[in-house]
This record gives sequence, C-alpha cells and structure tokens, in this order.
Amino acid sequence: MQKEATKKNERVVEVFDLFVKHIQSFFDEAKLNHEEYTNFVNWADRLGKTGELPLFADVFLETHVLRSMYTETPGTQPSLLGPYFIEGSPLIEAEADQPFVLTQRPDEAGEILYFKGNVSSVDGHPLSNVKVEMWHNDTDATYSAFDSVAPRYNLRGHFYTDENGDFVVKTIKPTPYPIPTNGPTGEFLEYAEMHPMRPAHLHLMFEAEGHETLITQVFPDDDEWLENDVADGVRLDLLTKFEDKGEYLEASLNFVMRKK
Amino acid sequence: MQKEATKKNERVVEVFDLFVKHIQSFFDEAKLNHEEYTNFVNWADRLGKTGELPLFADVFLETHVLRSMYTETPGTQPSLLGPYFIEGSPLIEAEADQPFVLTQRPDEAGEILYFKGNVSSVDGHPLSNVKVEMWHNDTDATYSAFDSVAPRYNLRGHFYTDENGDFVVKTIKPTPYPIPTNGPTGEFLEYAEMHPMRPAHLHLMFEAEGHETLITQVFPDDDEWLENDVADGVRLDLLTKFEDKGEYLEASLNFVMRKK
Repeated sequence: MQKEATKKNERVVEVFDLFVKHIQSFFDEAKLNHEEYTNFVNWADRLGKTGELPLFADVFLETHVLRSMYTETPGTQPSLLGPYFIEGSPLIEAEADQPFVLTQRPDEAGEILYFKGNVSSVDGHPLSNVKVEMWHNDTDATYSAFDSVAPRYNLRGHFYTDENGDFVVKTIKPTPYPIPTNGPTGEFLEYAEMHPMRPAHLHLMFEAEGHETLITQVFPDDDEWLENDVADGVRLDLLTKFEDKGEYLEASLNFVMRKK
Repeated sequence: MQKEATKKNERVVEVFDLFVKHIQSFFDEAKLNHEEYTNFVNWADRLGKTGELPLFADVFLETHVLRSMYTETPGTQPSLLGPYFIEGSPLIEAEADQPFVLTQRPDEAGEILYFKGNVSSVDGHPLSNVKVEMWHNDTDATYSAFDSVAPRYNLRGHFYTDENGDFVVKTIKPTPYPIPTNGPTGEFLEYAEMHPMRPAHLHLMFEAEGHETLITQVFPDDDEWLENDVADGVRLDLLTKFEDKGEYLEASLNFVMRKK
C-alpha cells in the first residue's frame, strides 16, 4: 500500500509539474500584460465559480485527449463522456423477445426509436453479458437531472447484452441542443464566433470483463450539426442511419471493445 | 469604437486559442488516461468552485508572467499583486512633518515600523504626487477583509509622495504566513511536498502619470522564508533591512518607475 501511494504521488507531482509548465508556456507565448492576465484570471474564476469548468474541459479538451489516444487503434472510437452522465441509473430487465425500454414518462414526446446494437471484442468474438449504460436528452433538448422537469433518471438506464452480444432498446430520438451559453463558456464561444450546437446523439458506455470500458456516442447520419459539432465529438464510425419505418425509427450499430 | 472592439476581440480569440493549444499539449505530454483526466478535471472543478482559482494562479503563475516580462528591464522589479488587494482604501492625509499613519486599530499589536521610500522615474527624476497604495497583514497573519476580525480597511490605505518623491509611513511589521491549505491549492502543495509559507512583506502599488503602474512587495532581508517563498515573489532589489531602533523598526527602499 505504502509503495502504491508513493507511486501515485509521483505521478500526481509529474502531472501537476507538466500542467504548470504548459500554462507558463501559454503565458510566455501569449505575452499577456498584467491587465490581460487579470482579465484572463477573472474569466477563469467565473468559469470555476459557476461550476462550468468541467463543461469547458469536456467540450474543448476531452475530445482532444481521446483523439490523440485512439485514432490509430482498432475498435470503436470513443467519444466524450460529457458533463451529463450521472451514477445510479435503473437496471432495465429483459422481457422475453421484447426490446429493453429506456426509462421514460408515459407521455414521453418524440419519435419512437428502436436502436439495435451488437458488442464484440477486437478479436472478433461476440461479447455476452456486457453492461450497457445509455442516456440521452428529450425533445425539450434537456437531460434529466440537469435543468429538466423530467424525473431524475428519465431517458437513462442500463441493461446487458444477450448470448450473441446483441441488444435492442426502445427509446425516443434525441435532439440537437446548444451547450449552455449564458456563462463564461458562452463568452468564449462568442469571442471565438462559434455556434453552441451539438448534433443529436445517444450516449453509450460499455463495460465488459477483460476489456477497456468504452464510452462513446451514436449520431444520426443526417443531422445538420455533424460537420461542426461544437464539442468535436463526431467520428465517422459513430454515424448510422435513423430509418423511418412509418410508426417509428430504426437504427443499429456494432461496437468493438478493446482488450485491457 | 467598432474598430477597437474588433481589435480587442481578435486579441481575445488569439489568447483563447493559445490557451487551448497549450492545455492540449499538456494533455499530450502528460498522456493522461481517461481516469486521470477525470481526476484532474474534478480537482480543477473544486479549485474553481471554492474560488481558489485566482489564489492558485497568483501563487503559481503570476510571478512567472512578471519574471518573463521584467527581469531584463531597468526599474524596480514588480512582484505579485496577490489575491488580497481590495479597492477603496482610505486616503491618508499628510500632517506637517509627520509620517502618514496606515489605518490601524488603537491597540494594533506588532512592532512599530517606519517605512521610508523614494519614488523616481527611470530617467532619474524624482516623482512627486505619486499615488502610493499600501496593504499588508497583521500579527494574526491575516489580511483585513479576508477571514479577519479587523475592520475592512485595517492596515490598508493610500497617500501621495511629496515634492521630492519621498514618503514616510508608520505601520507595524508584517508577518510571514501560510497560503490557505485546506482546499485544492493545499492538496497541490501536499502532493508537491511544498510548504505553504510566504515571507513577511509589505504590498505597494505606485501610480504616476506617464508611467507604468508598479505593483510590488518589500521584504525584510532576514526573513526565514526568503529562500523558498511558496509564491516565488522575492526579488533581490525588493529586500531591505528592518533596523531595530529600540522602540521601533526603521526600513527604507527606493522605487524606480518605468515610462509608458
């Protein structure tokens, strides 16, 4: 234990040293004068106090971390976790020959969506009993538990793949939405003349023994915001057709998990 | 106006782009995995929400900005403004042949200090009527208006240099103190195995027409924390002897301001 603690400590020191070093090279290259320094720190202070720092980090930095780690490796590309995941979603039980039904209100608005997935390992074998966590927004473009009138776990839940690695889940089509614009992150977007929109997406997280947890998103391939997602979360292998079947939409995607 | 706004805007975009670029190179070099990324963002979120972000920035970054801008230029070295400056300090009036008396309680504890200064321009001329803002901590090691029982403007005030650029102010000797250790900044110090102490110092800010505002600090040359000030604010030309005159201490320093 002692040794592990020391090792962890050294890693933390290493990370902090690099953080300070790179922030200092930012100051060196930006050549901020004292007034600009003060303005910048005030902006960062507001970002911090309003609790928007994780939002800013997830939108402008997380995707960069993921790209630099995964672009070249086989398996489904991860996308950002984002700030709207919460722990403790309900387990959705399988009923014989029926799709899982994602937690929703009896009168949930929106187009019904059947989403089919298959989960396999990079070695080609299907993965059964994989825990699939799913969450997305509603037609008000809000996530439950975040400025939403819906119950805490609305449009959230987890379930398990069957013996072939398959699952089918019934939910509604998610909605494109703007990230919050009334705080310091919005100021940043305004300065940078960027729109705040994200394309519609399902969030999915897969956990399987012996494999890296896969956190990713699925996008309808005809969304108008795909080309310039503010959070840069779109990857080509995460697009799929949301096919109009009259009464409902149908979409599917296969997911490939990396071994640990 | 329109043109100025556009120019300011371009500068802000430039600064933000550089900020994101350098933070991304931090992530690249640190090779954070997703868990480390999450831990790091959580730490930064706590730093932000507790309002410690300016403290962290001032202690670990501001001094670097100042060093890189001023080390090679003539004139008194600036030191950090720090998080304890507040606007609106009282004007201290001159009484004939008497020193200014910094705002203090009738029973203010501490060694009496007479501090003498002279302010001149880099061209060698004395600067009269320079606004001198002064603030420092008390023997409890606290700054008024920050976790202190003292009145809001205790040991704070401003006054003006005389026709020769001179001033004398009566106050008490400041106290070495630890920066706050019970929050995320303290966590950082613990990881980095750094003590939290700053040497005793007077804060001074000089404003004179046609000159850059000079924000700096003055340190007793025998303070035990000079060598490893946690905020790295010490500069050799900011040290002076606090001479024991029996009933009181006496110290002096000359300040040289840069032209705009």
